[in-house]
Parts: sequence; C-alpha cells; structure tokens
Amino acid sequence: MNSFDRPVCILGLGLIGGSLLRDVPGAFGYNRSAATAQKAADDGFDASADLAATLKRAERDNALIVLAVPYPAISGLLDAIVEYAPSCGFTDVVSIKGEVLAHVRQRGLEDHYVGSHPMAGTADSGWSASLSGLFKKAAWVITFDHALESPSPEWVSLWRDVALLGKSVGGEIVPARVHSHDSAVARISHLPHILAEALAITGDNGGALSLSLAASSFRDGTRVAGTEPPLVRAMCETNAEALREALDETLGLLTEVRSRLDAEDPDLERFITDGYRARIRYEVRSGNDHRANSVSPRAVSARPIMRVQPGGRNWVNTLIHAESIGAQIEVI
Amino acid sequence: MNSFDRPVCILGLGLIGGSLLRDVPGAFGYNRSAATAQKAADDGFDASADLAATLKRAERDNALIVLAVPYPAISGLLDAIVEYAPSCGFTDVVSIKGEVLAHVRQRGLEDHYVGSHPMAGTADSGWSASLSGLFKKAAWVITFDHALESPSPEWVSLWRDVALLGKSVGGEIVPARVHSHDSAVARISHLPHILAEALAITGDNGGALSLSLAASSFRDGTRVAGTEPPLVRAMCETNAEALREALDETLGLLTEVRSRLDAEDPDLERFITDGYRARIRYEVRSGNDHRANSVSPRAVSARPIMRVQPGGRNWVNTLIHAESIGAQIEVI
Repeated sequence: MNSFDRPVCILGLGLIGGSLLRDVPGAFGYNRSAATAQKAADDGFDASADLAATLKRAERDNALIVLAVPYPAISGLLDAIVEYAPSCGFTDVVSIKGEVLAHVRQRGLEDHYVGSHPMAGTADSGWSASLSGLFKKAAWVITFDHALESPSPEWVSLWRDVALLGKSVGGEIVPARVHSHDSAVARISHLPHILAEALAITGDNGGALSLSLAASSFRDGTRVAGTEPPLVRAMCETNAEALREALDETLGLLTEVRSRLDAEDPDLERFITDGYRARIRYEVRSGNDHRANSVSPRAVSARPIMRVQPGGRNWVNTLIHAESIGAQIEVI
Repeated sequence: MNSFDRPVCILGLGLIGGSLLRDVPGAFGYNRSAATAQKAADDGFDASADLAATLKRAERDNALIVLAVPYPAISGLLDAIVEYAPSCGFTDVVSIKGEVLAHVRQRGLEDHYVGSHPMAGTADSGWSASLSGLFKKAAWVITFDHALESPSPEWVSLWRDVALLGKSVGGEIVPARVHSHDSAVARISHLPHILAEALAITGDNGGALSLSLAASSFRDGTRVAGTEPPLVRAMCETNAEALREALDETLGLLTEVRSRLDAEDPDLERFITDGYRARIRYEVRSGNDHRANSVSPRAVSARPIMRVQPGGRNWVNTLIHAESIGAQIEVI
C-alpha cells in the first residue's frame, strides 16, 4: 500500500492525476474518457470510466479521493462525491484555491476537504504526458484554513494524509491559507503569463524586422505565451481579484518608468537596481544560478523545513509561521 | 589575412571585441586596461594598451576599425580617430544606433562610418568571457542610412567590408536603418528587460511564500533582471524614445486587461489568444520549438536571404526591402 495506509482514488487521469496514479502504490483511478481509462489500464494501472462505481469503491474502502480535473469540472465531481462517497475525505489539485473552497463551502463539505496545489507540470497534458517522478522536489501546497475553525479529529487525520500523500511522491509540502496561496500564485505564476502575452503582442507589432532580431531575452520573456490559451484563461480569470492586485503594482512601476523616459536624461537607476536585487533574492532563495540559465531541477532544496504534528499543541501557529516564510513541513 | 583583404583594428577587448580578435585572422587590438591587453597578448593575440600607437598603425595599414567599447566610451574614441586615423573607415558594436550616429554626425564622419550591432552575447563580460565562434548564426545588423545620402565610393566599399567582416565570423547580416533598428530592439530587447525588472519586483513584494512557490514561468520571466544594472541602464536610457513607444503599447494592453479583471466574469480570451498567436508566429519565424524549451542555437537559419551588390543598381531599394522582412543579405 502506501505510507499512510489508506487507498487513494484519483478522479481525472491527465498530466497530474496520471502521474499520481503512476507514483502511488495501490491507487485506483477514473477518467471521463473511456479511451483514456483503457489506455491507463493497458499500461497496467487500475483505471475505470465508471464514476459511480469508482466512487462507491472509494466509499467502501475509505479511500482518500484526489480531484485531478480542471477547475470547471470540480463542481460536478463534488456533487458525485456527495452522492456516492459521502464519508470520504478529498483533496484537489487545481491551481487556484479560493474558488474551489467556495464550491466546497456551498455544499458544507469543509470538514471533508483539504486543498492541494502540486506546482509541477510540463507543457504537455493528458495521460500520455503523465510520468513517474513528476512531483519530485516540486512545491506541493496544502491549505489549512479549516484548521482555524475547530475541525473534527477526522479532518486533522485527513490533513495529515494529504500531506503524506504529497510527500510520498517526492513533493515538498508548503502549507498556505487559501487567500495567501492565491495571492502568491497571482504574482509568480499568473502575472508572468499576462506579461508574456503583452510582450509577445508588442514584439509582434514591430513586424518582421523585430521578430528577426529577437534573441534570448524575448524568447524567455514570451515562453509561457506559448501555453494553450484555455489553460491561461482558466488560471487568470478565476483568480481575478489577486491578479488585479499584482497587476496594479506592476502597472504602477511601469507607469513610473514611462514618465521617467520623458525626461531629457532618463534615469532608471532605482527601478533597474530594485529589479536586479529582487531577482538576486529569488536566485539565492531558489538555488537558481542566473549565470547558468539552467533548466534542470536544483539538487538541494532551498526551502527551510519545519516539523509539524497535526492536531498537536500550537500546530496552527506553526503552520502560519511556515506560510509566512514559505517553509516546507515535515509531518511527525 | 581575411576575406576582405584589409587589416582589422579592434578598440576594446571585452566580450565582443575579444571574441572578434579571436576570430578575425591578422586582427590587432587595443584595450584601455594594460592588464587586459597583456592577457590577450599572453594568449597569443596582437594587443596593445597604447591607443595613439594602435590608431597610427591602423592609419598606416588602412585598417577597418571596430569600436568595441560601451556607449559612454564612444565619444572619446571618435575624437582619437579624428586625431590619429583620420582616413580610416570604422564601425561600432553598440546595441543602440541612433545616439552613436549622432556623435558621428557631430564630427562630420558619416562617410567613414557604418554602424553594426552583432546580436550575440553571454551573461559574462570582459576578455576572459570572450570566445571563438560567438557570432555564429547570430544576427549582425548593419546600418545603411548613409546609402540614401549619395555616399562616396569609399563608403560603399567600407559598407561591403563591414558586411564581409560580420559574415567572416559567422554572423547573419541583417541591414536596417538606424531608426528601424532602434525601434525593433526596443520591442524585443529593451522592453523584455523592463518587464523582467517589474515582474521581479512585484514577485518579491509577495514575500517569502511567493518566492518559495515561484516556478519556471517566474524564473524565465525574470531571467534578464539578473543582468548587471549598468548594462540595462545603458541600453534602455539611451533608447528612450523608441522604448517609450513600445512601453506605451504594452501599457495599453495591460490597462485593458486590468479593467477586464474588474468584471463579474472576467473575459481575457482575445488578449490571451492574441499573445499566443504572436508567440507562435515568433516560434515559426525563429525555428524555436516552444515545446522543447531548447537553449541551443537552431541548426538552420530561418531568415530569408537576399543578394546585394553594394553600389549596384537599385541596391538601396533591395536593402529597404530586406529590412522590411528582416532578411539577411549575401554580398556579391
């Protein structure tokens, strides 16, 4: 079985769900497309295209359910869980957490739910893109808002299991409340997409000569503009409030630069030095070396580690502290 | 000697000048720092720290002079050329061309000057960073504004030699007028730096949790913010007018996104689709495959090739056409 002694039921066998199915011993999965479920089964995994049967099995086995579908499909799966697996605990892997939690609250399922966001991926999607080892050394965010609301012992146990699940596939467990998570990913994931799109359009407006002269700064600055538009829309449109806040800061900076460029002798020293220092802080923090331009994962984690005993004395304060320093946790 | 049968004199032996000295047979160089000149000499190259002597030698040998110094040092070298090598033709390798041409015009040297911008580099600088092969398959812009001003036959011959020099070290010669060049690099080189700085600052404002969760989109989007601030300032501040125009377009796009995020159901479809299409056009054009995220140079040039006979009938129109499609030229 696995390190937390509880079966895992994975709903959705795309890049994330499929990779989980490969890495979690004894896990079983469901996919809406019968062809995909069949492919997974042909590859030797326990997969079905029958949602009701899969959820009934999860209920019977007291499985931990993972919703590994895109955000628009979450609502329908929550209804199915209520119907077929009402006593199961579950997590999800959607890249925004506020909107998912809202759906969970609408159904009064807070005590059965812990949000996840494994920050791993490739440019490809679907079962054929899934692979073993995808989550190694990746941040795996788990939310803990409900810990502040006198949760049941079962929820505390569920929380521990979700953390152990992420850990068991090599993730680094970073606790964060929903609002903090959504605000952080707006800055470091959704805003980069928006800026990449804007840069791609502005460069393209320069015509053939511009594109002919474009070198690595343009290539890297626009790379994520090559992401399929529906994926970018799903991230940015569902995290509008936090993205707006981050974008307002960026617009403030750029507007200031714009006005300085009007001067007789433009002086961008402070802005450029601030940007340089921020990047260096990120490099030091992440272990990235800006000289190497490496695309390989770093060898050693740069995230501090804090030990947490779920339900133990002061555990919520430890989680809040870990969130504030972006630490990973070790569940004891 | 070299393919254009004329000695080459390189002033400044940093990354660009040093790499040229390595790749141009029979070239000789000067560096302000005696230690650097000595290092180059120790490595077996013909290098001196005596500017006057170097320029007198250039004048005696009718050398083609390359100003391979940063923009702030250009003005002083032009004065030295007027004094010691008044009959030599020269080019420069500064990344903006308008301000350099202004200095050239101030001294009435238009008929001795052809601007270059070899778009090659690494994150490092100085003689120790220089290397053979740096210019292979890189765009090497050469300006031709003076071709529209009834230039002398000597200037046409100089223009041919500068093109042959770039070609001889493996560059792809892209003709562009000064204004077109500066406008293009504002969009695809200077704007990417500005957006990278703004993204780095906004991400950093999110604190430790944001930096902890930052993954490849933030890493790539901020990469060039790790460039030494003086280099970024030199590029952006000296190309203020063109950069302002590009930045205004970007600000227009981002402000529109900002206002759409206020809506009940934000709709970013058009913006995100436009950005995606622009990136795909760039990928097709450059031969970059957005799935591979490759950092290696492409095997085959994607730039169309046009043949040009300097001074021949209609050659200026051919150059204007090449500029408009970002083509490289072959000098016949």
